Amino acid sequence: MAEHALDISEDTRLQRLERLQNVLDSGALAQARKMLNALTPGEIAHLLEALPLAERDVLWNLVDDELEGEVLVLLTDEVRADLISKMNREELVSATDGLDTDDLADLVQELPETIAREIIDSLDQQHRERLEAVLSYPEDTAGGLMNPDAVTVRPEVTLDVVIRYLRRIRDHIPEDTDSLFVVNRDGRYLGVLPLIELVRRDPDDIVAEAMTLEPPPIPATMEDNQVANLFEQHDLISAPVVDEEGRLLGRITVDDVVDVIREEGEHQFMGQAGLSEDEDMFAPVMVSARRRAVWLGVNLLTAFLASWVIGLFEETIQRVVALAVLMPVVASMGGIAGSQTLTLTIRGIALGQLSGKNARRLLLKEMAVAGINSIVWAAVVATIAGIWFHSVDIGALIAVALTVNLLLAAFTGALLPLILDRLGIDPALAGSVLLTTVTDVVGFLAFLGLASLFLV
Amino acid sequence: MAEHALDISEDTRLQRLERLQNVLDSGALAQARKMLNALTPGEIAHLLEALPLAERDVLWNLVDDELEGEVLVLLTDEVRADLISKMNREELVSATDGLDTDDLADLVQELPETIAREIIDSLDQQHRERLEAVLSYPEDTAGGLMNPDAVTVRPEVTLDVVIRYLRRIRDHIPEDTDSLFVVNRDGRYLGVLPLIELVRRDPDDIVAEAMTLEPPPIPATMEDNQVANLFEQHDLISAPVVDEEGRLLGRITVDDVVDVIREEGEHQFMGQAGLSEDEDMFAPVMVSARRRAVWLGVNLLTAFLASWVIGLFEETIQRVVALAVLMPVVASMGGIAGSQTLTLTIRGIALGQLSGKNARRLLLKEMAVAGINSIVWAAVVATIAGIWFHSVDIGALIAVALTVNLLLAAFTGALLPLILDRLGIDPALAGSVLLTTVTDVVGFLAFLGLASLFLV
Repeated sequence: MAEHALDISEDTRLQRLERLQNVLDSGALAQARKMLNALTPGEIAHLLEALPLAERDVLWNLVDDELEGEVLVLLTDEVRADLISKMNREELVSATDGLDTDDLADLVQELPETIAREIIDSLDQQHRERLEAVLSYPEDTAGGLMNPDAVTVRPEVTLDVVIRYLRRIRDHIPEDTDSLFVVNRDGRYLGVLPLIELVRRDPDDIVAEAMTLEPPPIPATMEDNQVANLFEQHDLISAPVVDEEGRLLGRITVDDVVDVIREEGEHQFMGQAGLSEDEDMFAPVMVSARRRAVWLGVNLLTAFLASWVIGLFEETIQRVVALAVLMPVVASMGGIAGSQTLTLTIRGIALGQLSGKNARRLLLKEMAVAGINSIVWAAVVATIAGIWFHSVDIGALIAVALTVNLLLAAFTGALLPLILDRLGIDPALAGSVLLTTVTDVVGFLAFLGLASLFLV
Repeated sequence: MAEHALDISEDTRLQRLERLQNVLDSGALAQARKMLNALTPGEIAHLLEALPLAERDVLWNLVDDELEGEVLVLLTDEVRADLISKMNREELVSATDGLDTDDLADLVQELPETIAREIIDSLDQQHRERLEAVLSYPEDTAGGLMNPDAVTVRPEVTLDVVIRYLRRIRDHIPEDTDSLFVVNRDGRYLGVLPLIELVRRDPDDIVAEAMTLEPPPIPATMEDNQVANLFEQHDLISAPVVDEEGRLLGRITVDDVVDVIREEGEHQFMGQAGLSEDEDMFAPVMVSARRRAVWLGVNLLTAFLASWVIGLFEETIQRVVALAVLMPVVASMGGIAGSQTLTLTIRGIALGQLSGKNARRLLLKEMAVAGINSIVWAAVVATIAGIWFHSVDIGALIAVALTVNLLLAAFTGALLPLILDRLGIDPALAGSVLLTTVTDVVGFLAFLGLASLFLV
């Protein structure tokens, strides 16, 4: 046992990746196959995502047929699409064999229409109806996340009856069942019966006495990040999903929610650089280049806008070259200060913590913080610039410009994401480009504009 | 039931916050207290985090005494420290009453030494020993995350005996128990007995037959983000924690892991702006200002470094002012391209997907992507700049400078986080400042340097 535990501690994902790459490089494919298929589908998916395209294809061919479906479900969208595009009809059909209904629903939506149809038609009626129930909801809602395979019981039976029922259906109980759902004759959700109640209570108790009303049922149309919040704030492990009439449709388990939370975090992080959270690290060069080009193009527009502003003051710069030397300081300090406020505001919005009321308070607070910092840093920058260029005027000028830019940066950083969010534009994606545009333009305009008025 | 479900769908966290703020503003404290204490501790923590300081204090006074401890546990570090600093000894002691051992361990570490000692001493021996076991591991390890209150059974007894045992200890079974842990006479971990096995199997089966060896036991010293990976890749709900001799110390449940994953994501996102994931949105203005000042100061150094580079070419700029107008384009395009590569690399490192081998592959791929984009955008920028300033030379010059900067940006973006990580410096925190320094300096140096050699 002791060695078993130690083994895992050393077996970080990175070391596993390196070991596998060494085996692949040595060409010992049989050994690689053995290593690979001893892993969980989640671990295999992780390795596939980490490998460059050629090695990924080699590895994928080594994965056992019966694991392929589960691995595909767990891959990020781009890598999954890449592998699916290289599989033929029979491989795809056999990969979906034996999947849970929620996993099958995820996968079927990524398959070519005709193959998806064939797979759906091959199911028995009960499975097909359940699958179609999941497919009828968008992927990013509770209905799309749920697994319709849940064990239900009636409120009026005794726990003893429930236990005997479970023994009868023993091989058909879904994995990770930690509780049963109580429904009435019409399939309406009434409550949850945690398994622990079955064993710790008197077997003659009836279900209605033993069930709890927590967690509250989740409407199938609820958005996935709201579902994640509910799980977090109620510390849920699984929760029932109901339709608009309160009828039980299925259950969501926490492992699906973990994926939603992970993706939300990655979306914010990657979004600021104009990348998608599904970005394949080893996407083909031309595919990556095309995507990146779009982002560079958008940013080029803002860069040229800043250049145009500078261009308005060519004459001024020609007379006082120090302005050209110092102008990036004003612009970049604004950008930095603004991005701090922007980041704080985007997180507040994502967490549902910014109402109209406290958004105003945040705006005021951030302006106050910017005000204090502009006093401090205007003094520092003015001193350095004044000494460097032997000019009190230049020092005074940059101090004023920096103050203006820092205050406007805080104002924009707090307000912009709220406005974007209101307009239905994702602030995590568009926020930083727009903010930098503002801080660059205002920074150059304030500094060079003041100089042309007072210095030249 | 139907209305119940609909209620939740409309009751987003934001609406709840707004409703509560309205009630607070109207001064109906009794109503606010009632609304508040009907919520889960997680929901109360969320509201407290969302409120400005004065309102937060008002709200905190309305929270029922018996909920205070659980709410404190769930708050982010800064908000918790703020509230604890305003509580007196008795309030703190009574808040810790009845907490689970893992929660108590989290809280005790944040309390003043003397109060913590008093609380620990007031526990009975079993609880004290368990608490001290948790406290002996750093907070960000499996040992620090675990709850030592787990139900254990012996492998040789029958399931029927287990069920009778559970009925006897019914009121002492920890919340969210989904499985029991099997240990031998010495307390060594042997396997897991999911509750479902108790009810679906023959009561005369013995535990050893019914238990599973999955999940693998987690060493108490494993880092929390590795624990999170394990939970994600094995789809775990709870897992046993063992010491170096394989003895069971406790269990980790998925709700703790969800917090780790959420914090990891926020750390990456907030870190890029020099903010901590624990940042209190409504920290006092002076506290925020001081923290932000540090980040602005660091960035000012890099801004002045860029200015100094520009200063080397004052004469050149004076002769060709177009250079001053265009130089931000070269620097900012490099910054944008570099931050895309940087972000991709930081995520790869965080996910344990960048070994020495595929890091080299990623570097080559990113350089290739940058190469293609530099051809495209060098042509576009050269054309615009050439027409704008009626000069083929300036067009050619900016094309070359842009190409150099984009290639170097990709090189730095891929290599820098790997080097920082190797040095034990957090790339999510230091990466973007250092990258921008490189792309600014190289951008200005390449553009102005080439100009001074060939243009003037």
